[in-house]
Amino acid sequence: MLHPKGAKFARFAVFTSLLFFSSSHLDLAWQAAPAAPEAQVARDAGSSAIRAVLSDQQEAWNRGNIPAFLRGYWNSPELTFAGSDGIVRGYAGLLERYQKSYPDQAHMGELKFSDLEIHPLGTDSALVLGHWHLTRSVGDTGGVFSLVFHRFPVGWRIIHDHTSAQKRTP
Amino acid sequence: MLHPKGAKFARFAVFTSLLFFSSSHLDLAWQAAPAAPEAQVARDAGSSAIRAVLSDQQEAWNRGNIPAFLRGYWNSPELTFAGSDGIVRGYAGLLERYQKSYPDQAHMGELKFSDLEIHPLGTDSALVLGHWHLTRSVGDTGGVFSLVFHRFPVGWRIIHDHTSAQKRTP
Repeated sequence: MLHPKGAKFARFAVFTSLLFFSSSHLDLAWQAAPAAPEAQVARDAGSSAIRAVLSDQQEAWNRGNIPAFLRGYWNSPELTFAGSDGIVRGYAGLLERYQKSYPDQAHMGELKFSDLEIHPLGTDSALVLGHWHLTRSVGDTGGVFSLVFHRFPVGWRIIHDHTSAQKRTP
Repeated sequence: MLHPKGAKFARFAVFTSLLFFSSSHLDLAWQAAPAAPEAQVARDAGSSAIRAVLSDQQEAWNRGNIPAFLRGYWNSPELTFAGSDGIVRGYAGLLERYQKSYPDQAHMGELKFSDLEIHPLGTDSALVLGHWHLTRSVGDTGGVFSLVFHRFPVGWRIIHDHTSAQKRTP
């Protein structure tokens, strides 16, 4: 968690979580012991539900619908975003921040996720890692994200998002 | 998870996780329902164990002992680090990367963590957020981190680390 001196960093990306249905995604279990059949079924169901949330977000983004994109997040003041602007909290204000950073189609571009990994953390939480890439007329950008999902009665939602842009994007 | 165009980013910090015993840390529960007494006891024990791991790491860092610092990580090829260099994997190679980035006391400096938050994710996992700051003769640096801890038979260990430097450090 320490960075060397002299580095320059981008402003915090208000953004998060869409996904590319990569064929190279992994579903690693953190625990050495094999899961019981019923636990494996629950994990598979959780992974599918999480992929559906992220897929919905990606589709929303790529049709320019930021409010629909935001539905993947936990609607709570305790929602957290970590990045080069520190830690930002709360669902309220998300729409405004996104619209400010991505005011038009040229800035939104086409979003693609790759190398998605879903790591179950018990039955009601999961860590999701992946790469994001925006193809845009104003310049491409991309990086990596770590998302923590939690299963609520309403379904799986992102409760924490830590996103970084990469030094170089393809 | 998207960053605007034109940003410049630092190289990946091989580093992670020490902690400042902040009086402002929070222990928020992600679930609305209050925990059962035995669950609360387990969570408190988990929080204490995690704080002990991080405290040990901080102390190790501040006496210049990188190998001792690394003991807080999961010793596995599946250990993951996310940041501005993308996703880096595996416990092997950690020592070399740290020693390369922090070759001497001037680069290591004095580490301080603040605003630590431990969010339980079930009984065997937790999300830990915090700020890090290095006071150094070669220049201060700092930022935020998101750590996922898992409880193994050997104790709580970091299984995923996503660290960012902040645009401005105090």
